[in-house]
Amino acid sequence: MATGEHDPRIPPPFQQAERVLRFGDQSIDVLANELGTPYYAYDRAAIEARVQALRRHLPQRVRLSYAVKANPMPALVNFLASRVDGLDVASAGEAERALASAMTPSAISFAGPGKRDSEIAQAVHSGITIGLESRRQIDTVAAEAREQGKTPRVSLRLNPDFRVKGSGMHMGGGPQPFGVDVEQAPEFLRTIHDEGLHLAGIHIFAGSQNLRASVIAEAQRRSLDLALELTHELSHAPEFINIGGGFGIPYFPGDVPLDLATVGKHLHALDEELAAASPDTHLVVELGRYIVGEAGVYVTRVIDRKISRGQVYLITDGGMHHHLAASGNLGQVLRKNYPVAIGNRLDERAEERVTIAGPLCTPLDVLADRVFLPRAEVGDLVVVFQSGAYGLTASPTGFLGHPPPQEILV
Amino acid sequence: MATGEHDPRIPPPFQQAERVLRFGDQSIDVLANELGTPYYAYDRAAIEARVQALRRHLPQRVRLSYAVKANPMPALVNFLASRVDGLDVASAGEAERALASAMTPSAISFAGPGKRDSEIAQAVHSGITIGLESRRQIDTVAAEAREQGKTPRVSLRLNPDFRVKGSGMHMGGGPQPFGVDVEQAPEFLRTIHDEGLHLAGIHIFAGSQNLRASVIAEAQRRSLDLALELTHELSHAPEFINIGGGFGIPYFPGDVPLDLATVGKHLHALDEELAAASPDTHLVVELGRYIVGEAGVYVTRVIDRKISRGQVYLITDGGMHHHLAASGNLGQVLRKNYPVAIGNRLDERAEERVTIAGPLCTPLDVLADRVFLPRAEVGDLVVVFQSGAYGLTASPTGFLGHPPPQEILV
Repeated sequence: MATGEHDPRIPPPFQQAERVLRFGDQSIDVLANELGTPYYAYDRAAIEARVQALRRHLPQRVRLSYAVKANPMPALVNFLASRVDGLDVASAGEAERALASAMTPSAISFAGPGKRDSEIAQAVHSGITIGLESRRQIDTVAAEAREQGKTPRVSLRLNPDFRVKGSGMHMGGGPQPFGVDVEQAPEFLRTIHDEGLHLAGIHIFAGSQNLRASVIAEAQRRSLDLALELTHELSHAPEFINIGGGFGIPYFPGDVPLDLATVGKHLHALDEELAAASPDTHLVVELGRYIVGEAGVYVTRVIDRKISRGQVYLITDGGMHHHLAASGNLGQVLRKNYPVAIGNRLDERAEERVTIAGPLCTPLDVLADRVFLPRAEVGDLVVVFQSGAYGLTASPTGFLGHPPPQEILV
Repeated sequence: MATGEHDPRIPPPFQQAERVLRFGDQSIDVLANELGTPYYAYDRAAIEARVQALRRHLPQRVRLSYAVKANPMPALVNFLASRVDGLDVASAGEAERALASAMTPSAISFAGPGKRDSEIAQAVHSGITIGLESRRQIDTVAAEAREQGKTPRVSLRLNPDFRVKGSGMHMGGGPQPFGVDVEQAPEFLRTIHDEGLHLAGIHIFAGSQNLRASVIAEAQRRSLDLALELTHELSHAPEFINIGGGFGIPYFPGDVPLDLATVGKHLHALDEELAAASPDTHLVVELGRYIVGEAGVYVTRVIDRKISRGQVYLITDGGMHHHLAASGNLGQVLRKNYPVAIGNRLDERAEERVTIAGPLCTPLDVLADRVFLPRAEVGDLVVVFQSGAYGLTASPTGFLGHPPPQEILV
């Protein structure tokens, strides 16, 4: 890479014509010296910019919710709590973090196919909105409501009768552990009504990590149609219809960033339709990865450089135990390389093909396989981009007994 | 399954003709009530039996080492420390656990392609045997030895020039981040000598999780030949030649348990050869999974039962965040089911095909996909067998903020 040129694999928030990658108002080498390596860093300016882009393209009436599971770092959750309209949590542990933020409890929604009784009791007590996904969940919430003398806010999560093409993961259509089949929904809605629970919304989530605006628009259209069909049968209009998210980010060569303008355009049409049909009902778009994924990096130091039978290996002090997804072991069928760079040699030309392996005694511990990079030496810093979501907490940090990484919001 | 019959997928240590699975001298439901669910339990009698089987089949001169990374639970490491001849550790964290056990420091060996300077300093200080895997590791150990005024015990880890067929993972042959290519070994051995380090042994590890005795025997034969060839050039005979392990355990339908008697028979021949060629040199066989893998279970409670479009789902309070390998996300190319049972209905006939999914909001969280089991209800206990190795510590326990499981050695 010639000086001043940008590697197409370095994501836009970090394309700066300097030798050392800058991050927020800091450079990654200064952070490495202050925090030690490895570390995760998240850029609040990049997160802010992404939220603003969403606000610009999405209709004003649409509520934006952050899925805490993507990155539950407390500082980051607190930062987002004042910038989005809701937080989605997936456990009592995540609910505690959300309740510790500035978010109103009723704007916190609790999803999950397996809610323990103790989690439901905590949720009823705290007044968060409980996403119901099975008959047993309805019964347990109702029993807990009687016990506590409360009227819980609930939503019903539907497993739709369609699938979304091109999603990273299917979470709707066909048999699913998530939600209740839409065919069963009328019966479940009656039960919710009969049990005296307050139905605040309908929740439909069809898939994740989709890069095609037309597919997302189609899924949103079908989700809204499905929800509206059901709400006709209700005694009151629901406050919200959560049509999920599934907005993808580019990870791999050939991935084209999602066309947010097109998604927004379609959403405007849906929102106008909804406003006409049910003026007090708001669409909720729930995003995790899309809000924070591109705003984070994982930085690890080269602690050895060796050549084995012609193949150059950079051995780093971090690896799959901190970043399972980058090692290709979090749901990937074929291992592909996350975008990486030698973060303190951005002005140098790529000149060798190297494999970046972590310190673990297992061939699974590979951060990047045969990537073309500037020549790196011991002490240099490897940066793994697109690491703001499903990074640290989705990784087996105890594996082989190495210390955990630091985490910072800059 | 009729009363008194045994499901062929229930491993031998646990085949008892009772309704509720017994574990050690306890039953899993009593443990569930005492510990809460989910939990991991390891059976010391099963571990003891496995060590005894190894002692029975392996030549008396062969030293048996336990690879702590397979399961670093302190009680288990302490239990094994008095039953095996050495402990292999893969980080400073594991070294601390090994040093806290009854094992002599010199019988603790430290492996790993990426050893931080601070880890090497600690290793030199504590007197454990440091496995050298690169020129930089040699230089760092030598510098640290001068600094501390010590003569560290070291071994050289070789990347062999052959591959082992049918291994779960290749860790030798071709280019590797592990060890030094055997072609470079003479030069590295000279450096070790010139730096005044004490070469205690040679280490060769070709692959893991192999179920074929003939393949293991062949790898051991070639490893010994390779080591002996090199030791001819040494000024003194090494204390040990660590020929690794790689003994597999059966996980999946069709897996046939390793024929230990055949492995032992071949090892006797090798050991006699070694005793004749180099009487003061001992073979080391290093095993992790084979010693503890079959002695452990993961137990999780059914917290919901639902049917979606004809598919029965059992939703459990544990899942991939505790047992990544059982979910198929630890290096598996094709997902296969670990052996599972409804642990409190062993006397009931299998009558339905169910998918066992954990509580996480992700389609990755599946413990068993469409397995044929007795009808289970909420409150029942799902047992995942073959969970004694690469279970808890190889899992992303922080994912989605659920509490960690308990762990017990019974």
